[in-house]
Amino acid sequence: MPAKARDNIERLDAYVPGEQPGYAQTSGGGAVVLKFNTNESPYPPSDAVLRAVRGLSAEALRLYPPADAAEFRAAAAAAHGLTPGHVIATNGGDELLRLLITVFCEPGNGGIGTTAPSYTLYPVLAAIQDTPVCVVDRVGDDFALPGDLAQRWNDAGCRLAFLVNPHAPTGRLEPLDTVRALAEAFDGLLVVDEAYVDFAEGDALPLLRDEARGDVVILRSLSKGYGLAGLRFGYGLADPTIIATLDKARDSYNTDIVAQVAATAAVRDVDYARSTWQKVIDERARLTGELRRRGFAVPDSASNFVLAAVPGGGAARAEAIYRHCKTHGVLIRYFGNQPRLGDRLRITVGTPAQTDRLLGLIDSAP
Amino acid sequence: MPAKARDNIERLDAYVPGEQPGYAQTSGGGAVVLKFNTNESPYPPSDAVLRAVRGLSAEALRLYPPADAAEFRAAAAAAHGLTPGHVIATNGGDELLRLLITVFCEPGNGGIGTTAPSYTLYPVLAAIQDTPVCVVDRVGDDFALPGDLAQRWNDAGCRLAFLVNPHAPTGRLEPLDTVRALAEAFDGLLVVDEAYVDFAEGDALPLLRDEARGDVVILRSLSKGYGLAGLRFGYGLADPTIIATLDKARDSYNTDIVAQVAATAAVRDVDYARSTWQKVIDERARLTGELRRRGFAVPDSASNFVLAAVPGGGAARAEAIYRHCKTHGVLIRYFGNQPRLGDRLRITVGTPAQTDRLLGLIDSAP
Repeated sequence: MPAKARDNIERLDAYVPGEQPGYAQTSGGGAVVLKFNTNESPYPPSDAVLRAVRGLSAEALRLYPPADAAEFRAAAAAAHGLTPGHVIATNGGDELLRLLITVFCEPGNGGIGTTAPSYTLYPVLAAIQDTPVCVVDRVGDDFALPGDLAQRWNDAGCRLAFLVNPHAPTGRLEPLDTVRALAEAFDGLLVVDEAYVDFAEGDALPLLRDEARGDVVILRSLSKGYGLAGLRFGYGLADPTIIATLDKARDSYNTDIVAQVAATAAVRDVDYARSTWQKVIDERARLTGELRRRGFAVPDSASNFVLAAVPGGGAARAEAIYRHCKTHGVLIRYFGNQPRLGDRLRITVGTPAQTDRLLGLIDSAP
Repeated sequence: MPAKARDNIERLDAYVPGEQPGYAQTSGGGAVVLKFNTNESPYPPSDAVLRAVRGLSAEALRLYPPADAAEFRAAAAAAHGLTPGHVIATNGGDELLRLLITVFCEPGNGGIGTTAPSYTLYPVLAAIQDTPVCVVDRVGDDFALPGDLAQRWNDAGCRLAFLVNPHAPTGRLEPLDTVRALAEAFDGLLVVDEAYVDFAEGDALPLLRDEARGDVVILRSLSKGYGLAGLRFGYGLADPTIIATLDKARDSYNTDIVAQVAATAAVRDVDYARSTWQKVIDERARLTGELRRRGFAVPDSASNFVLAAVPGGGAARAEAIYRHCKTHGVLIRYFGNQPRLGDRLRITVGTPAQTDRLLGLIDSAP
């Protein structure tokens, strides 16, 4: 008998990752492509990471990895002033998002709260679990949080809510007091998705480290701030009782030995990573200024990208710039017909030379 | 408000991975520990794998990996005489198991069928999805499949059934005709878990390659046959419509770039892997003979382990041997109070020198 998937899976529109050039083009040979569309760091990972990967023995590959990623968890705990019991290592931040929904959201009811616009994976993961999504629009030109956000999530019976902070795609950062107030007002578990926090001033760590809150989970990723998008390594920080529950539901050996040793080396060499963050922050200021000088409306960003509204012509003009850049081997993020984003472009911050190339293309766009 | 997990998660007893020595002990320095308890290969991965890992550029780590693992899928398809559309790459075989349950099994009903004894992760994954499990006991001293197996799975409304073949923990291999008949009689999707098939003669590939069946999924793993348990890489083979459905539900970048290049190198160098399989097969014959000579009842195994019933004393004797070996730095698998397995030990096949050491310990056990 032919296999029949669950109805919610049959109906599902899969998540579409950001546009990727043919891999061969970017990993050597062929046309050089600049990717400003998926928010990778423009800087390579630490030499310590490369040494850790290249130094791996055949024996380490032969044996099952530590199921609990103990060494990484100790390193992350030390970096954040928490205990290893506060840390869960995951196969990318995306695995943590899925795990949270698996553990806390019932199929059929008690779903997730999000804001719009936001990470388009959230509703896909909810649909896979067959749990509802309560989407609350951000308000105004600056995409602020509405005052009744928590109440609306509560009214919908949400068990989890996801706040990307700094926000994507705007780069807007909510201050700690706002995050704390949201956690207090929301009846469920607030997930603060800090995938981009390395480029911001301030994070939600005090809510765990100083206030020992049991209603907050922080997501971190090594993809952006540590130049390790290829590695798929993320982690969650939360009260140890929450971590222990998540641990029961994760795949038994969810992170491999290569990723564990590389991630451990990366967080131990935070000084290197921090030096790359500062370069990105400096270049973000220059890119923002240059775009504004050209008439783009660019809100201040606390992330490693900026969201730029084109100075005239709306969505057609945004698409023209996107296509012109793409023709010349430079990818930026164009949102097509997504609500409120049609006339905007999201541009990852690159190196100074890369910014110059991008600006030249913008200036020469038809 | 403190977070409350779903009831099925609160109730869940997490999967317990096989006993692992302290990682530092096995990866260099400290007491040498021989692991005959979790079925790793005694041989290292191919040099081509090590070259692929060590040759990875910083740039490859910096960028997101190919979301579709296209190069690996092409290599696996070529190896098996299938198309890339028949292949899904997963973060270990365990991710494929979870994905299958996510996609095909409803919470609350329409669960999974298994046989007992079997891989203890299956019921854990079912409990996470909150879907029922229909466990059918294998029969007789040789743990054969009962004739009404498919009917009992059908009566329980199972949407999926899992057949480990070769079977763990016995090593018993069902011939292709039996697997085909089971797929035909079962109303759902039959998952043939071939984690150990590299050490057997015959597999279920003809059901896909020659017969294009749409009711069978084959699971493969690089953990055992390719000496890559540390890497967490598995894959599924099935009709492309099934693969496309699974693809929608997997985490968007579920396998990282290191694992992709290493796995690709491994399957391309199947000649090396095959040479290690032959050595394991030869040593399995010697270990079986030596154990039988000592009075153990050891059924023929088609896997990289043997299941040995101790010659007298039952569970107490099995435990004594297990503890004696452990005291001397050698781990074998003792099943404690698991039904029908209390007087048996599962022993991974090692190198000839390792077998000698193990036999010496068995001979000196009190």
